[in-house]
Amino acid sequence: MRKIMYFDQAASSWPKPPAVTEAMMTCMQEYAANPGRGSHQMAVQASRVLFETRKHAARLFGIKNPNDISFALNTTHALNQAIKGFVREGDHVICTNIEHNSVRRPLEYLKSTSKVELTYISHNAEGHMELSELERAFQTNTTLVVVNHSSNLLGTILPVGEIGEICRRRGVRMLVDAAQSAGVLPIQVGDMSIDMLAFPGHKGLLGPQGTGGLYVNPDIDLEPLLHGGTGSQSEAINQPTVRPDRYEAGTQNTVGIAGLNEGIKFVLAETVEKIHEKEWRQTQRLMEGLLGIEGVTVLGPGLGQNKTGIVSFNINKVDSSEVAFILDQSFQIAVRAGYHCTPLAHEAAGTLATGAVRASIGYFTEDEEVEALIDAVHEIRLQYA
Amino acid sequence: MRKIMYFDQAASSWPKPPAVTEAMMTCMQEYAANPGRGSHQMAVQASRVLFETRKHAARLFGIKNPNDISFALNTTHALNQAIKGFVREGDHVICTNIEHNSVRRPLEYLKSTSKVELTYISHNAEGHMELSELERAFQTNTTLVVVNHSSNLLGTILPVGEIGEICRRRGVRMLVDAAQSAGVLPIQVGDMSIDMLAFPGHKGLLGPQGTGGLYVNPDIDLEPLLHGGTGSQSEAINQPTVRPDRYEAGTQNTVGIAGLNEGIKFVLAETVEKIHEKEWRQTQRLMEGLLGIEGVTVLGPGLGQNKTGIVSFNINKVDSSEVAFILDQSFQIAVRAGYHCTPLAHEAAGTLATGAVRASIGYFTEDEEVEALIDAVHEIRLQYA
Repeated sequence: MRKIMYFDQAASSWPKPPAVTEAMMTCMQEYAANPGRGSHQMAVQASRVLFETRKHAARLFGIKNPNDISFALNTTHALNQAIKGFVREGDHVICTNIEHNSVRRPLEYLKSTSKVELTYISHNAEGHMELSELERAFQTNTTLVVVNHSSNLLGTILPVGEIGEICRRRGVRMLVDAAQSAGVLPIQVGDMSIDMLAFPGHKGLLGPQGTGGLYVNPDIDLEPLLHGGTGSQSEAINQPTVRPDRYEAGTQNTVGIAGLNEGIKFVLAETVEKIHEKEWRQTQRLMEGLLGIEGVTVLGPGLGQNKTGIVSFNINKVDSSEVAFILDQSFQIAVRAGYHCTPLAHEAAGTLATGAVRASIGYFTEDEEVEALIDAVHEIRLQYA
Repeated sequence: MRKIMYFDQAASSWPKPPAVTEAMMTCMQEYAANPGRGSHQMAVQASRVLFETRKHAARLFGIKNPNDISFALNTTHALNQAIKGFVREGDHVICTNIEHNSVRRPLEYLKSTSKVELTYISHNAEGHMELSELERAFQTNTTLVVVNHSSNLLGTILPVGEIGEICRRRGVRMLVDAAQSAGVLPIQVGDMSIDMLAFPGHKGLLGPQGTGGLYVNPDIDLEPLLHGGTGSQSEAINQPTVRPDRYEAGTQNTVGIAGLNEGIKFVLAETVEKIHEKEWRQTQRLMEGLLGIEGVTVLGPGLGQNKTGIVSFNINKVDSSEVAFILDQSFQIAVRAGYHCTPLAHEAAGTLATGAVRASIGYFTEDEEVEALIDAVHEIRLQYA
């Protein structure tokens, strides 16, 4: 296989630091037993790796008690646990119109069952919101604000700390979807008044797919999404109240979490500041190159603005799927086309008809790959559009 | 580390066939992109592996359409999806009193919200039920019977086919928890009238933790447990109705499923009949050895009866945790002690006070390990009890 230039980092980061895969192999070969379910050495080792991973994630996000983090299959699982576990009948919830379907669909589902009221905060084409609109959206029954830290289509960074402060003053909880920010933007749950934080393991934290997590402020109790065995309080009919067991029914993905542990350790060692700086620099270069090609439009914040490593673009009116197909087949460049599970963000960006090509940058993206992508888009522009 | 003799196979099987770990490494190194989310080569390869795994699972369980299988984090996730997605307010559900907490807790939760009525079918000390008691338990509002194929404490095999036939005649659906049977007992959803089948990837199917699945009969529509992105119908507010997307929101555990694929292929090649036969023979030898030691009691079906590879026992009145601790520390033998997430089964077996030591056998268990466990129990009996 020829070398693939991988610009789908916002879906899953790749490649991973070698230690991630090595830790997974060691787990499979030496201790892939059930964490928390037995007292024998292999089970103890599995438990230890889970706790270490929690500890490292807690350090990264400024979380005091690692046991306030529970593991999940993916961010969607964590968000469903947070939203469905928190919202009660009669609640009013606020979210933005650039949320991913992993936030919008659970909320719309709850709305369809007449359980909650829902207000969307609008965004301009660059993905920016007015905090005053948020202020006006609060109702007496507002209990929760859900907001993504960074748009998976536009790369826009939302003012989570300011939103958190507004929520805190009103006694309303804030749930942050860190799908595009965990591992690439500084996140401190205390400073940013984050009550719940849903994060993926397989994106900026550089772990494998099948991992993710949810932080829940210790003064919040969620109804568990999954009821089942926890290895603790077996005789009780109810889900244990002790964390993390309360939100972790069934056997956890030990091997995946062992990999995630190494991914987070890598991020802690490099620092999110350094990671973001490198990604931002390449993002700027990519945008600059694309904006220099006639007929190419780039979505989201303009040159020089802060954003995550996402560059969504279109070439004239060429269908985004066609562009992605040509990039893959003729240039060995992997991008993603379509709607990226966030239709309202496309509405804001004016691309609901065409979708968009999304090129996303990761910490291991090379400068030469960025140049190759710019050249390829140039060529496609000349030949097809 | 000295070699550990691993008798905790009912929690997670170990070791795995080498191809399992190899496939996971290949995935991590070559194509750990998002299945179903992009059209580039790596994403296509990821999608292909998911489909192949579905196809192999479908072959193993006699399922016509592989897309009627959705992947899950673990059996608990699959069972929660099945139970909470199926049951409607006012329904009556029947289960057995030897169900795992992964069945009992979701059902008791629904009962506590006054949504459902719940009836438990009793079992004798060996884990056998009377079908006539089941027949008498049906009500006009009964919609679902949930039954484990094999008890995780007693190893008893339940007459799933007969129960399925009873349900089918009454137009009631049957959900089977195959946590202890998938990969070791023949399962054919059609012949056994199984409407929904929840199975783990990391036990008898010899895949890694973090995997499992749910088969749902095509004429049943469940409310999704997780709402979110699927890579399909991004613009729709609702979860897509197309399978498997409907029950698979968020990024799937591609690397884990790549491993599971090899596990299932191994099982298909060896055949469940051969696997069960080997495990049963060793189970009989272990029971025989243990029953020959004065003061040792073995739970579940007696010698010569059909059962899965689970041997739960007690030594006089010695606490089961203590026995497990000594086996681990002094004999390098890994077993599990306690209640095994199934308190009512202990009630049936008369071990609610002591718990039990559970030694579980897998396809790679060696005859010498069985003998070593018997010798160790003998020695503990002499020294401690």
